[in-house]
Amino acid sequence: MTAVDFEAFVGELARAAGEAVRPFFRTALSMRDKSAGVAFDPVTEADRAAETAMRQMIMETFPAHGIVGEEFPDHQPDAEYRWVLDPIDGTKSFICGFPTWGTLICLEHNGRPAYGMMHQPFTRERFMGDGARASWSGLNPHGTEISHHLRTRPCATMAEATTMTTSPRLMQPAERDRYARVEDAARLSRYGGDCYSYCMLAAGHVDLVIESGLKPYDIAALIPIVTGAGGLVTTWDGGDASQGGQVIAAGDARVHELALALLNG
Amino acid sequence: MTAVDFEAFVGELARAAGEAVRPFFRTALSMRDKSAGVAFDPVTEADRAAETAMRQMIMETFPAHGIVGEEFPDHQPDAEYRWVLDPIDGTKSFICGFPTWGTLICLEHNGRPAYGMMHQPFTRERFMGDGARASWSGLNPHGTEISHHLRTRPCATMAEATTMTTSPRLMQPAERDRYARVEDAARLSRYGGDCYSYCMLAAGHVDLVIESGLKPYDIAALIPIVTGAGGLVTTWDGGDASQGGQVIAAGDARVHELALALLNG
Repeated sequence: MTAVDFEAFVGELARAAGEAVRPFFRTALSMRDKSAGVAFDPVTEADRAAETAMRQMIMETFPAHGIVGEEFPDHQPDAEYRWVLDPIDGTKSFICGFPTWGTLICLEHNGRPAYGMMHQPFTRERFMGDGARASWSGLNPHGTEISHHLRTRPCATMAEATTMTTSPRLMQPAERDRYARVEDAARLSRYGGDCYSYCMLAAGHVDLVIESGLKPYDIAALIPIVTGAGGLVTTWDGGDASQGGQVIAAGDARVHELALALLNG
Repeated sequence: MTAVDFEAFVGELARAAGEAVRPFFRTALSMRDKSAGVAFDPVTEADRAAETAMRQMIMETFPAHGIVGEEFPDHQPDAEYRWVLDPIDGTKSFICGFPTWGTLICLEHNGRPAYGMMHQPFTRERFMGDGARASWSGLNPHGTEISHHLRTRPCATMAEATTMTTSPRLMQPAERDRYARVEDAARLSRYGGDCYSYCMLAAGHVDLVIESGLKPYDIAALIPIVTGAGGLVTTWDGGDASQGGQVIAAGDARVHELALALLNG
């Protein structure tokens, strides 16, 4: 399969997921609280419909590949090539009607995220990266599809940094105190966002995204997008972030180092 | 001037503001910190360009009307009809690249908000209301413009309520403690949003929006949208919200009463 075929295939996965999800967006949703009161984490019919559609396409096209998703049991998780899927990252945004959730699709090779895509079907935007390059496609004001490369912006000091997290309430109290040190030193702090925040970091509009309690499928697809745009993604102790947990993404290595020092100071 | 003419005129104001603002969205912005460290509240070239365009159109079309805006001195503020303008509500969202800011346009009659519009030029959505009715217009998945009425959803108890605020960090510490009681009782709490949150409340996806420190131009346009959709907007002590300050919007009078009791308990 050529590189062109591969990009087209991931685009088809995103399209299928978007078609499965979109009828549920801003409509009555069937929800249940799967985490039993620990945190509100709704699962929707849309989530399951989209993951089912993507799994079926992958199994038909790449029978040797593995699949790990939010909604269903792992399929061949030790395969050389493994897909990591999150049909709706940002379920709170989704159920509140905000267009800042996305479908996350990652292809891992030997356990490392190799290619990632974030697709937002309401705004019709896609953010893609392979660790070396990253790009955006979407619509111009006349409704014509356009695309461009993504580059993070330079940020040398905390005093010029914009930092984001989805919500401090998703952090443990001790983590919240550590994050507060970053917020207090930053120029600007904003909440909300989920996957959209990492994409805006890749696009050069945000300098730091700092979260905790992430699952692998919450972050895997975003790593090749951020690194492909010139940024970096690690855990709060500077290690590999592809398994989730405490994650920090930065557009510039200098502000990454400064934020790590504050988190661990 | 007929009712149709009026709606078309407000649509033209929104279109002009969107055209003035959109070239600055997701591009390098010139910003300054006008609140000198109290809170980060950037003013952009876009803000001033959009407000200038709207003011000029209003002055030419309705020379007897007043104009109050964020960026420039009041014009005939005691006029019977007065426009209240906020070219970019949600400047943090705007500078972070998120599509959840909006242009707010309100027409007040004898000091009361009579008609409001929120326009989001990136998603090409408009939310409009006159206190008796409210509606949304935007694009369907094929790019065709569609519209529908907005209705808030029923919400009888805090246990089923979704509550939003842009950021608890925008509240004073005592206010934050009061809001935390609402959050703790709610089913779901989400941060971020600005004007978009009120529009999602009008659309029936959110039950409460609770904020403090609002300016009149942050809330005036949203009141006829929320009330036109069947909701209510008051201050935290149940009074008139059109002057800003501590504001609570609710989709259902029952959850409004419950949230007020928690805020003031």
